[in-house]
Amino acid sequence: MAFDRLIENIVKMQNPTVAGLDPKLDYVPESIKTKCFEKYGKTLEGAAAALFEFNKALIDALYDIVPAVKPQAAYYEMYGWQGVKALCDTIAYAKSKGMFVITDGKRNDIGTTMEAYATAHLGHTDVAGESIDAFGADALTVNGYLGTDGIKPFVDVCKEEKKGIFILVKTSNPSSGEFQDRMIDGRPLYEWVGEKVAEWGADCMGDSYSYVGAVVGATYPEQGKILRKVMPKSFILVPGYGAQGGKGADLVHFFNEDGLGAIVNSSRGIICAYKQDKYKDMGITAENFADASRKAVEDMIEDISGALANR
Amino acid sequence: MAFDRLIENIVKMQNPTVAGLDPKLDYVPESIKTKCFEKYGKTLEGAAAALFEFNKALIDALYDIVPAVKPQAAYYEMYGWQGVKALCDTIAYAKSKGMFVITDGKRNDIGTTMEAYATAHLGHTDVAGESIDAFGADALTVNGYLGTDGIKPFVDVCKEEKKGIFILVKTSNPSSGEFQDRMIDGRPLYEWVGEKVAEWGADCMGDSYSYVGAVVGATYPEQGKILRKVMPKSFILVPGYGAQGGKGADLVHFFNEDGLGAIVNSSRGIICAYKQDKYKDMGITAENFADASRKAVEDMIEDISGALANR
Repeated sequence: MAFDRLIENIVKMQNPTVAGLDPKLDYVPESIKTKCFEKYGKTLEGAAAALFEFNKALIDALYDIVPAVKPQAAYYEMYGWQGVKALCDTIAYAKSKGMFVITDGKRNDIGTTMEAYATAHLGHTDVAGESIDAFGADALTVNGYLGTDGIKPFVDVCKEEKKGIFILVKTSNPSSGEFQDRMIDGRPLYEWVGEKVAEWGADCMGDSYSYVGAVVGATYPEQGKILRKVMPKSFILVPGYGAQGGKGADLVHFFNEDGLGAIVNSSRGIICAYKQDKYKDMGITAENFADASRKAVEDMIEDISGALANR
Repeated sequence: MAFDRLIENIVKMQNPTVAGLDPKLDYVPESIKTKCFEKYGKTLEGAAAALFEFNKALIDALYDIVPAVKPQAAYYEMYGWQGVKALCDTIAYAKSKGMFVITDGKRNDIGTTMEAYATAHLGHTDVAGESIDAFGADALTVNGYLGTDGIKPFVDVCKEEKKGIFILVKTSNPSSGEFQDRMIDGRPLYEWVGEKVAEWGADCMGDSYSYVGAVVGATYPEQGKILRKVMPKSFILVPGYGAQGGKGADLVHFFNEDGLGAIVNSSRGIICAYKQDKYKDMGITAENFADASRKAVEDMIEDISGALANR
C-alpha cells in the first residue's frame, strides 16, 4: 500500500520530489506568528500552533503537485511536546490530502526498543485492547549503525503494515566520509551498509520496490551511481538538493531506468522560497508565502525532469 | 555543572548506576492503570498518565540511592505526543529530586537540524525572545554515523550549557558487530569512533571528565577494556547489564582507577523487579512495586561494588 501509493503519486504528478517540512519559527511569516502568539502567548503552545498553521498552508498549496512531505522531527521536538503534537497534526493533515508522509527521525535502537519506535511512528499502539495510531506516518528514516537487531523490528512492522523505512547509507554532509567512506575489505563502509539495505529489503517487497529504502545525499552523485546498482529495488531518499548544493544534473544516477527509485527532498528551498529574491521579484510577499513555495516546486520539477530527459 | 553533578551524585551515593525508565504499559501495575483509565479513558492520554504515575513512584523510591535516570524516548513516543509530555514531566520530576537525567534518544542529524535537537533536549528554545526549556535533560545519547557535522552542534551546546552527550561506540546487541567490528586499517570501526569521541571531548571538559561520553555495552567487556584506554576522559554509559546478560564482573574494566568514568544502566531489572520471583518471595506485591525496584538497586550496587573491590 504505502510505498506503492508513493509510486502512484509520483507517476500521477510526474514529480519525484518531497517537500521537507522543517519549520523553524524564523521561517514562519510574521502574520501567522502574531495571530498564534495573541491566542496562546509567546509559549511553546503558541509556537507549535504557528508551525502547524504554516504547514497547513504549505500542504494546501502543494498537495496536488508534490507526492510526499518529510517533516523533520528535530524542528518539532525543539518546541517540546507541544511541537510534537504539531508533528502529529501535520502528519494527519498531509495524509488527509493524499500525501505520502515520511517522518525524518533517523531513529535507532535495538530489540524491544526499536519495536517501540516502529509502533510509535508506523504501527498501532495497544492501550488496554484499544489500537491507536500514535504518529501514523507512512515511512520513517532510520540509522543502521546497530546492525540487523536495530532494523529487523522495523522490517517486521513494514511487512505487516506495508509501510516503509529509509536507512542512512551515505549522508549529504561534508564530514559524512569520516566513518562512511572508510575502506573495509576494499570497499567503503557505505557500500556494505547499502548491501545490507538490499538484503533486508529482499524480504519485504511491494509491487516493484522494497519497503526498505535508503538515504543517499545529492551531494555525492558518484556514490549514488554505485549505490543505485547495489540496491536496485530500494527507493532512495535524496537530501541535499538546493540549499546544500545538489543540482538536477547530479541526480540522474539515483534513478532507475523506469524513471523511479528516487525521491528528492528540498526543505528550505521550498518552505522558505518566499525569502528568495527570485520569487520576491515576481511580486510574491510573505503574506503569499505558499505561492512562492509552489513556484519553487515547479522550478524544481523542471530542473529534475530536464536532467532526467537529457540523461 | 551537569556532568560534575553526575559525578557528585555517584560519589555521594557510592553508586555508579542509572535506572532506565522504559515504561511500557505492560510494566505498569494494574492499580495505576485502572485509576488512569477511569480518569482519561483507554486513550493515549490515559496511558501517558499511567506512565508518569509509575515513573514518579519509582523516582520517589530511588532518588536517594540512584544518581541518575535514563528515560528511553521510544517508550514515550509509542504513546504519541501525550507520551512525549509524560517524558517532559518525568525529566522535570527527576531533576526536582536532584537526579541527573539522561534522555536516551540516540538522535543524529547534521548542521542546523542537529542544532535543533541540541536545543530541544539540552538547551533553551527561543520563542520570540522568550527562552524556554523544551525538554531540559542533563544529557542525551547520540549516534555518530554522520561524523563531526552531526556532533559539533551538540558539543557547542554542551560547552555553553555544561551538559553532556553519550555517543554510541559499541552497542550491547548481538548484531552490533555487523558494522561496528569491521576492520579498518587494522582496527575495528568502534575504535575509530572511540578515538573521535576522545577528540570531540578534549575541547569540552568538566572538572575531571569531558562532556562528551560514550555508550559501550556491558556485553562486550573486552572491547570495553580497550575503549576505556582510547577515551580516558570520557564517561562511559554501559547498557546491557541484567536483562541483556551483563554481570558486575564484566564491568570492572569500564571504570578508571579513580572508581569513576562509567555509569551502568539497568532498565527492566529495576523497573520490573516486582515481577521477579526473587522479590515476590520477599513478600513484595505489585502494589509495592517500587520497594522491589529499590531492593533491585541495592542488589545491583552490591554486585558492582563487590566486583570493583575485587579487581
